[in-house]
Amino acid sequence: MTTLHLPIDRSSATPIHRQIYEGIRGAILEGRLRSGRRIPSSRALAMELAVSRLPVLTAYAQLLHEGYLEGRVGSGTFVSASLPDDLLLTRSTATGLRSTTRVSPPAPSPDDGYGGLGPFRMSLPALDEFPHTLWNRLVARQAHALPHAAMAYGDPAGWMPLRAAIADHLRLARAVRCEAEQILVVPGSQAALRLAAAVLLARGDRVAMEEPGYPGARAALTADGAELVPVPVDDEGMSVAALWTRGRRVRVVYVTPSHQYPLGTAMSAARRLALLEWAVARDAWVLEDDYDSEYRYVSRPLGALQGMDGHERVIYVGTFSKVLFPALRIGYLVVPCTLWSRFMHARWAFDLFPPTLYQAVLAEFLRGGHYVRHLRRMRAIYHGRRDALLGGLARHCGERLNVLNADGGLHVTMRLADGLDDADVVARMARRGLTATALSSCYKGRERRSGLLLGFGGSTERRLAEAARVLGEVLRADRG
Amino acid sequence: MTTLHLPIDRSSATPIHRQIYEGIRGAILEGRLRSGRRIPSSRALAMELAVSRLPVLTAYAQLLHEGYLEGRVGSGTFVSASLPDDLLLTRSTATGLRSTTRVSPPAPSPDDGYGGLGPFRMSLPALDEFPHTLWNRLVARQAHALPHAAMAYGDPAGWMPLRAAIADHLRLARAVRCEAEQILVVPGSQAALRLAAAVLLARGDRVAMEEPGYPGARAALTADGAELVPVPVDDEGMSVAALWTRGRRVRVVYVTPSHQYPLGTAMSAARRLALLEWAVARDAWVLEDDYDSEYRYVSRPLGALQGMDGHERVIYVGTFSKVLFPALRIGYLVVPCTLWSRFMHARWAFDLFPPTLYQAVLAEFLRGGHYVRHLRRMRAIYHGRRDALLGGLARHCGERLNVLNADGGLHVTMRLADGLDDADVVARMARRGLTATALSSCYKGRERRSGLLLGFGGSTERRLAEAARVLGEVLRADRG
Repeated sequence: MTTLHLPIDRSSATPIHRQIYEGIRGAILEGRLRSGRRIPSSRALAMELAVSRLPVLTAYAQLLHEGYLEGRVGSGTFVSASLPDDLLLTRSTATGLRSTTRVSPPAPSPDDGYGGLGPFRMSLPALDEFPHTLWNRLVARQAHALPHAAMAYGDPAGWMPLRAAIADHLRLARAVRCEAEQILVVPGSQAALRLAAAVLLARGDRVAMEEPGYPGARAALTADGAELVPVPVDDEGMSVAALWTRGRRVRVVYVTPSHQYPLGTAMSAARRLALLEWAVARDAWVLEDDYDSEYRYVSRPLGALQGMDGHERVIYVGTFSKVLFPALRIGYLVVPCTLWSRFMHARWAFDLFPPTLYQAVLAEFLRGGHYVRHLRRMRAIYHGRRDALLGGLARHCGERLNVLNADGGLHVTMRLADGLDDADVVARMARRGLTATALSSCYKGRERRSGLLLGFGGSTERRLAEAARVLGEVLRADRG
Repeated sequence: MTTLHLPIDRSSATPIHRQIYEGIRGAILEGRLRSGRRIPSSRALAMELAVSRLPVLTAYAQLLHEGYLEGRVGSGTFVSASLPDDLLLTRSTATGLRSTTRVSPPAPSPDDGYGGLGPFRMSLPALDEFPHTLWNRLVARQAHALPHAAMAYGDPAGWMPLRAAIADHLRLARAVRCEAEQILVVPGSQAALRLAAAVLLARGDRVAMEEPGYPGARAALTADGAELVPVPVDDEGMSVAALWTRGRRVRVVYVTPSHQYPLGTAMSAARRLALLEWAVARDAWVLEDDYDSEYRYVSRPLGALQGMDGHERVIYVGTFSKVLFPALRIGYLVVPCTLWSRFMHARWAFDLFPPTLYQAVLAEFLRGGHYVRHLRRMRAIYHGRRDALLGGLARHCGERLNVLNADGGLHVTMRLADGLDDADVVARMARRGLTATALSSCYKGRERRSGLLLGFGGSTERRLAEAARVLGEVLRADRG
């Protein structure tokens, strides 16, 4: 049992629970709290700090989510054996959880034009380049135009004009085979995966995931008690051969074919066909998460796996969080006809229907051609940011890391030179204000490669070049 | 096996799936399709109508939700044994599902100023009296003011200023004991119940519900395989005596103490204390759904059950769907500290965080005092609508029905004179354009009282008086 010496400032604008959260997180990142160490119960810490138990519980809950702590509040809480960055720095949660302090107050902190959305953070679009004026005009117009009926109860599957617009876009841009009636609007890809798990996976069923893979998907796919089966990834994507041998009793396979998370490779056509063949033979389902497919810098974007599926085995998952902005909370599934009614049942039990206003705004944004224009514009901007990052890395970190893949998406994946422990590097980067994801945190099994995932979507070329310089110093510095 | 003669008009603006839905629903309501009859498989009907299978599946899915059909698409689909109105006409789904046709087109149909939100529909607020101009001004302002950080990832528990505003309001208006840190923002009460079920109920666990009770809660509470235990309601609310005898192995009790759904009675103080005593003794949880507590016409609103709970056994559920508008999709839970981290885990797996814009708008609406002013104003309007309905019923339907309760909320509950079958009456009302809920549809067990639930929130006094006249004709007319 450790006693934490957390400096709590009651006069500060930062809420107590946030101060506790940051105190403990800092202690872990700086190594003052080591892996496996037991931390005080919420009750004990509350007494020690002379605060109510609530802020302590809030802080613990966040640290548990982010993977800094393990165990359950009450029955003993410990510093995680493997430093997280798992949930924390991958494409969603943590950005969410970390941005809380900045989100809660009306304005971002002055010291940071991005409201704390620092360089290398994963899954952040270029909010500074978002067409705010146009978007807000559409919001105001749609809010004004919303008929009474649209303020009442909506279609559980989503606002039909939006579903139609999404289907049109997917057919053209992603070669997805779909009708508007197959589009199920949900609050994001996390919700889509959670919903698919509720429909397709029962306790004890097995779900296969890429190894390494997207840690955020684990929580959703195993929420109903399914068992995770990691399947290795090579430079053609998930190994279907391994799936044949290890995949017995696997009901669902989760894949990211157009831009493998985290390695960034695209699944080869041959591998795609083999996967579909396996799914048909095993009567299993394929969950295709097309999270980051819009941006390719070295070749044309690849069509979706779903478009190659002649047997309705693929459930396609997409989100607008990365092309537009995460707080939009609109994602969608393309559901095979045979599963439609089961998904509708489950969707409705989760929540009656999605909020209407943003659906109407997004439908107009898509139909008005703004979406395609936005994509084209952002592709050029992200291409520039990617090149700035790669240039900076070559200049400042050349010998210490080698880029595995930078062909597409909003992050670059690289291996660290031997002897460099990625979790340690990430911790030291954090002390310099840099946010990165450790490649090792994307592995479920013991065998992990040491590397970094650096997001470049949310920072300007200047900040990325500067951040690369700082990273170089971190990599050259001796440990600690 | 029946052949359905559905008139499909390809030139019509109404989507095919909607035409099929309405055709089958009409056939059931008009008795052309009788209970228990098997209907064609989606494939067969698609061929018969020479349409693709998708619209047929969409239509079947909706009819399944609404309880018109039972069984699963593919393995045979049948007309329900008990006419639904269950989901269809209770406070949520159906209004949702039925309003689809009207919601999808940009404008409500001209023949109906309410976009098809006809008289007696349950759970509809007075959208015609909603302060649209003020609300839209706040929407435009908040959309404009939203900092970049607020467009990124938000707090999974909700936007802190909103949580603080909700906690302040609940303490004052509902005597709820809570801190902002206990408020968990969700898309509505359905989502709140689904989340509570995911946290508190495992397959095989037992959950107690009022009998009669809110059918919409069943889907959410049993989604993870929990078993439902109906507990009778008398004029003091749920019978705790019955709970003691039948409540063995019950982990969770779902109650609507301030305005029992559907009967409208308020749970007595003695009964509330007895329920809390039972929960402590049995180490069980109480789910308080305070869905309709803001409006009382004969006495002061009662405080929440949660406020009487000294042992943190109550999870409080609230929504803004009825006071503001359903498409807002903002509800909340007040979570006991001991359960907080478990709820946060589950919440995050369902969806990373709630969309930010409407949270910011609602926070300003609450803090600016607009919410309380709105409540006061609406209370007077609803009082007038309730009186208009009661007056009309006394004038036109006096001898055929007797009002059980009209003390509060947005609907009036009444018994039908002997010999009148409520499902039949509801079906005949539907043919006259009236939407009502059969009291019998709120029972789980076989023993059911015949009565009507008539919503008055969404219609003007004039329309309610006229609708009461029509209802009188329906009640006096001979069957069919």
